[in-house]
Amino acid sequence: MIYFDNSATTRPFPEVLKSFHQVSERYYGNPSSIHGFGTESERLLQQSKKQAAQLLQVKSDEVVFTSGGTEGNNMAIKGVALQHQNRGKHIITTQIEHPSVIEACKALEDLGFEVTYLPVNEDGIVSVQDVQESIREDTILISVMHVNNELGSIQPIQEIGEVARKYPKLYFHVDHVQGLGKVPLNIDECGIDLCTLSSHKIHGLKGTGILFIKEKTPIFPLFHGGTQESQYRAGTENLAGIVAMVKALRLTFQNQDKAISHLERLNKRLRKGLEQLNQVHLNSPVHGAPHILNFSVPGYKPEVMIHALGEKGIYVSTKSACSSKHSDVSSILQACGHPLKRSSSALRISLSAENTENEVDIFIEEFERVLSELSKVMG
Amino acid sequence: MIYFDNSATTRPFPEVLKSFHQVSERYYGNPSSIHGFGTESERLLQQSKKQAAQLLQVKSDEVVFTSGGTEGNNMAIKGVALQHQNRGKHIITTQIEHPSVIEACKALEDLGFEVTYLPVNEDGIVSVQDVQESIREDTILISVMHVNNELGSIQPIQEIGEVARKYPKLYFHVDHVQGLGKVPLNIDECGIDLCTLSSHKIHGLKGTGILFIKEKTPIFPLFHGGTQESQYRAGTENLAGIVAMVKALRLTFQNQDKAISHLERLNKRLRKGLEQLNQVHLNSPVHGAPHILNFSVPGYKPEVMIHALGEKGIYVSTKSACSSKHSDVSSILQACGHPLKRSSSALRISLSAENTENEVDIFIEEFERVLSELSKVMG
Repeated sequence: MIYFDNSATTRPFPEVLKSFHQVSERYYGNPSSIHGFGTESERLLQQSKKQAAQLLQVKSDEVVFTSGGTEGNNMAIKGVALQHQNRGKHIITTQIEHPSVIEACKALEDLGFEVTYLPVNEDGIVSVQDVQESIREDTILISVMHVNNELGSIQPIQEIGEVARKYPKLYFHVDHVQGLGKVPLNIDECGIDLCTLSSHKIHGLKGTGILFIKEKTPIFPLFHGGTQESQYRAGTENLAGIVAMVKALRLTFQNQDKAISHLERLNKRLRKGLEQLNQVHLNSPVHGAPHILNFSVPGYKPEVMIHALGEKGIYVSTKSACSSKHSDVSSILQACGHPLKRSSSALRISLSAENTENEVDIFIEEFERVLSELSKVMG
Repeated sequence: MIYFDNSATTRPFPEVLKSFHQVSERYYGNPSSIHGFGTESERLLQQSKKQAAQLLQVKSDEVVFTSGGTEGNNMAIKGVALQHQNRGKHIITTQIEHPSVIEACKALEDLGFEVTYLPVNEDGIVSVQDVQESIREDTILISVMHVNNELGSIQPIQEIGEVARKYPKLYFHVDHVQGLGKVPLNIDECGIDLCTLSSHKIHGLKGTGILFIKEKTPIFPLFHGGTQESQYRAGTENLAGIVAMVKALRLTFQNQDKAISHLERLNKRLRKGLEQLNQVHLNSPVHGAPHILNFSVPGYKPEVMIHALGEKGIYVSTKSACSSKHSDVSSILQACGHPLKRSSSALRISLSAENTENEVDIFIEEFERVLSELSKVMG
């Protein structure tokens, strides 16, 4: 098969699965148990946290292990909102965030918060000036994603961070789920207070992630209970999943430069191939993330194209997996100003460094064939 | 080693680990992806949900997969509270709940809710009449655990359910984490609206659990985002963990009757052995859960005893893992009316059906030796 849906999820690295298995078998003690079998687990947990912190260039106690990106985004947004509501109830975000950010914000509106959803330009990029101008006395949080999951557009995180820094009572959250390993981000230098990462987008396992929480950032936990994770997140730690995540992180960072160059090559080749098909409109900006290429074929239903490609063992997607079961219309393409015909006929290719140039060539060939077959049926 | 800390966590069944591995390798597609590789995962997810529902004798869409017991308890309690706060802000629970219930309730008090923490008798059992009498016009939730994690005391869930049923606007939540597989509970017959289960207490994997949510029970989700889990819990499903959890559940229920008889035999043997040591006071009620035996040795520090036993490869605990890093004093034993000397010198043995009579005999022998050695040092 040709798997081009790596922004939905990736194949776990065999080394990652092996780590999971070994830890589950040998270190199943509860890290909170004070006997020797528990303290062995606790030691491995602390070691994993230290390694994750080193890889992310942050401090150990700023790493909070979570169950994934959706938890991280909800924990950051609701955590800041519920904790700091007495100071203010205004949140700034954009119109093209992941559903776990948009829906968390909408839920907070039901609880009496006010949210500004900033527009984006046709490349899917928010204006730093807009961010600056929307900050109010009662703004407690700015939440902007690094790399958009449908388009691959890259937000000016460093510049937004510089703006946010001027307001020390305001927190800055970045959803870095799609950027991790593909578009480098220096969490500390960008003035980020909270940063969401997910493991299964970088060949780790589902059900694991990290929320970076800058030290001395008080948030209202989603999970109260035991004192695990510096009381930011109670509950018995999924140690095997954590070790596996740190393994995936290390492998990702070790090969990052090579992977990015490879993805850029694949992206160029794909663009070139698709540009030759005159029904196709490319939606992803040229200077976007290298692993995502979004395009529309107006007049064609995405699920029909996906089904036809699927019969040839080629897997691509429409929109993000987390919103793919709704209608065809992409609210993100709409926010970029594209008309309905284009916003409702989008496909997304999302690459991993495991994909090859040969797969790109086969895809272009088969896609051309699919379009020509479909146009006959439709004609 | 002799592992007697199964209420903290258990050794994963080899079959469970195998399922996890196979699903991670073969079904890594995102169940929300609409292509064929995603729909294969979706099919496996629905099949797992159906199996879990059959095993628990509930409906498929009443099963919500979570990251574990702490998430389940927080989701149930905060979910009802935030959703139904306009109807009322009063919650009833007991003084001996798990930290994930107690702390969630305390956090809600900070948000303006009022919580009644009911007392228990010396066996750690709440009075049904007390529950009945504490219900007010503005009560929205009763949360009572089935089996206490430190003592093994069993709450009168069916009777409380009958009381709760008389107030259709009130929700009844049961933390069944310690009861699962050891003390049968019919969720449906007991009039339960929300029921928390955890996988790693029944030889499943950490990071997985179930929250039963009776159909048509609106709650405010902890995780907003995609439409997964009937919108009760957004986020890419940890399919491998889910399949592994259902496997653990099936194995547990298949062998439940035999396991319970075996645990009862081990419990009796332990009791008999400990009763012969005159420094020992048994804290667990005679008619408690078969897998938990709590006892105090006044004058002896629990961590010293745990350390001494640990040197012999025997692992027991004080209190619950989730509160074991605080002071020695057990708030649960205090709630049962025990004096400080007894509440601060408690040990907990928690068994699995994998433990043997021989292990019990070795434990009694070694424990007697430890006490005699320690009494010499202290004398």
